[in-house]
Amino acid sequence: MEFWKDYNGLGSEIEYVKNIIKENLSDSPLYMKDIINHILEAKGKFIRAALVIESASLGKSDFKRVAEIAAAIEILHLATLIHDDIIDEAIMRRGTESIQHRYGKDKAVVCGDYLFAKSFSLLSSDYQEHMKYLSKGVEKICLGEIYQQTNRFNTQLTVRQYLRTISGKTAALFAMCLYAGGLEAKLKKAQLKNLIRCGYAMGMSFQIIDDCLDYNGTDLTIGKSAKKDLLQGYYTLPLIYAIDNDQNEVLSEKLELLAEESFELDKIIQLVNQLDGVVKSKAVAEKYINRADKYLMLVDDKENIIKLRKLMQFLLKRNY
Amino acid sequence: MEFWKDYNGLGSEIEYVKNIIKENLSDSPLYMKDIINHILEAKGKFIRAALVIESASLGKSDFKRVAEIAAAIEILHLATLIHDDIIDEAIMRRGTESIQHRYGKDKAVVCGDYLFAKSFSLLSSDYQEHMKYLSKGVEKICLGEIYQQTNRFNTQLTVRQYLRTISGKTAALFAMCLYAGGLEAKLKKAQLKNLIRCGYAMGMSFQIIDDCLDYNGTDLTIGKSAKKDLLQGYYTLPLIYAIDNDQNEVLSEKLELLAEESFELDKIIQLVNQLDGVVKSKAVAEKYINRADKYLMLVDDKENIIKLRKLMQFLLKRNY
Repeated sequence: MEFWKDYNGLGSEIEYVKNIIKENLSDSPLYMKDIINHILEAKGKFIRAALVIESASLGKSDFKRVAEIAAAIEILHLATLIHDDIIDEAIMRRGTESIQHRYGKDKAVVCGDYLFAKSFSLLSSDYQEHMKYLSKGVEKICLGEIYQQTNRFNTQLTVRQYLRTISGKTAALFAMCLYAGGLEAKLKKAQLKNLIRCGYAMGMSFQIIDDCLDYNGTDLTIGKSAKKDLLQGYYTLPLIYAIDNDQNEVLSEKLELLAEESFELDKIIQLVNQLDGVVKSKAVAEKYINRADKYLMLVDDKENIIKLRKLMQFLLKRNY
Repeated sequence: MEFWKDYNGLGSEIEYVKNIIKENLSDSPLYMKDIINHILEAKGKFIRAALVIESASLGKSDFKRVAEIAAAIEILHLATLIHDDIIDEAIMRRGTESIQHRYGKDKAVVCGDYLFAKSFSLLSSDYQEHMKYLSKGVEKICLGEIYQQTNRFNTQLTVRQYLRTISGKTAALFAMCLYAGGLEAKLKKAQLKNLIRCGYAMGMSFQIIDDCLDYNGTDLTIGKSAKKDLLQGYYTLPLIYAIDNDQNEVLSEKLELLAEESFELDKIIQLVNQLDGVVKSKAVAEKYINRADKYLMLVDDKENIIKLRKLMQFLLKRNY
């Protein structure tokens, strides 16, 4: 898989997880086949599966079980992406046309529900101990999503409110992935607790970095995604910090005019950078990276956490 | 509750289930409160809860447990209704404004997901043995829904295809409700098998009767619902039978013009009645009622099935 090609050792495991997903979805009836095939052809990064696999390596675990749990979590994640695309009216997802754009919003709603159910079916056969926190996790994801919608176009959005949104949107599932692996590795309660905290901090920094990348105007696609977020009123950390520094209200004025003068978008992105929005956000991401590392050290000895730490560095030290 | 007012003995049990639902949803955060309150104020009939309760009465069961399972299933059902309303662009639901109309499709998507997760969270704490077939049930409901969408505006729709749609859409969950109660009543495998078959046949007849009621032009609201279905291309059993009898293709012609001349709707409803669509559908519903009764008799002695049979007669002998 492209994303993992320079990463030593996870490619085949993730390929295995992908095959479980394929098997589980390929028993769908004929009239669902087209949608399912479309989903399976997309290029997911399978980051959540990687998190489950590497945290399971903290102890003795049964890889077949770990891979099935990872598959269930990836199917769950996929369901949330399909529903997110309905809300965002996204045209593309994972390098291919989004379900909502290709098959319509109606089918996308039901297709997401179907994948939710598939994921829970998979878990309920042999992994019932995982169901409880994962269904709680989906609750958190939904709450994060609704919170985000409630705050659209809110130029008064605080850092605290932003962090609350991404806590549900991204960090909750990251934490749960590590917990899932840790549970399979039969870790002790105290270890699991620190693993959850580590995953949470990882998720927070991962999302902040993602939101910073949006304001790195160099890449065309990346620029596009920031613009889409802005037009839909999703204000992320770089923008919030920039508004804080916006003494002369140049940025605020531009934001107010956003709906009418969309050609000012480039200017907004430029201003966010000039007003130190990205620099300050990076500092917060760094804080979470350090926190994640601190908790990871509390989980186990240095030699044991080596794989998970390597994965963490790979995911968080992206060029930003 | 209005629906149960002439029904002896279930009102308080259902009120109890409703309170569990309230408790479970009232711990939602403040920004969800408005939506949740709106949901709780709606007038659901809680038919599925009644099915769980009465099938649990087939043996010794713990009512607190039964009520919690019934609550989880009703929350699950509610989630599917909220998503259905998105697809159908429904303005009303359960006597009040639909979530999609009041809060927008975006919030309705996430709100349904949240309720799915809530339902599974509730089940995963003490009722793990119920999760497996219920998640499979949601799969079936989704497949039924997608199948229905795939066949919209299909004037060649066969009876078989229609039955397949309502099998997923309604019958699967009815069957699961009886199974849930039976499981709590600690019934034997063979009894559970017949209970599932009985629930399935009940669900089939319930949906066919519902679809027949749509063509009983007497009531204004009922007429409206048939019209909405027709305009959205959902062709149900009465229409399918009427098309079969439509030698002169009067009805087919009218259907083809539906999109342009919506004032012909009354005529279509009239034609469906004239061409025996409703009469023939009622006969099929009757067949399923008899089948449900037959399987119910196989579950247990006559005295033991008395409550469930009474409920079945109440639900299926509606004025149609």
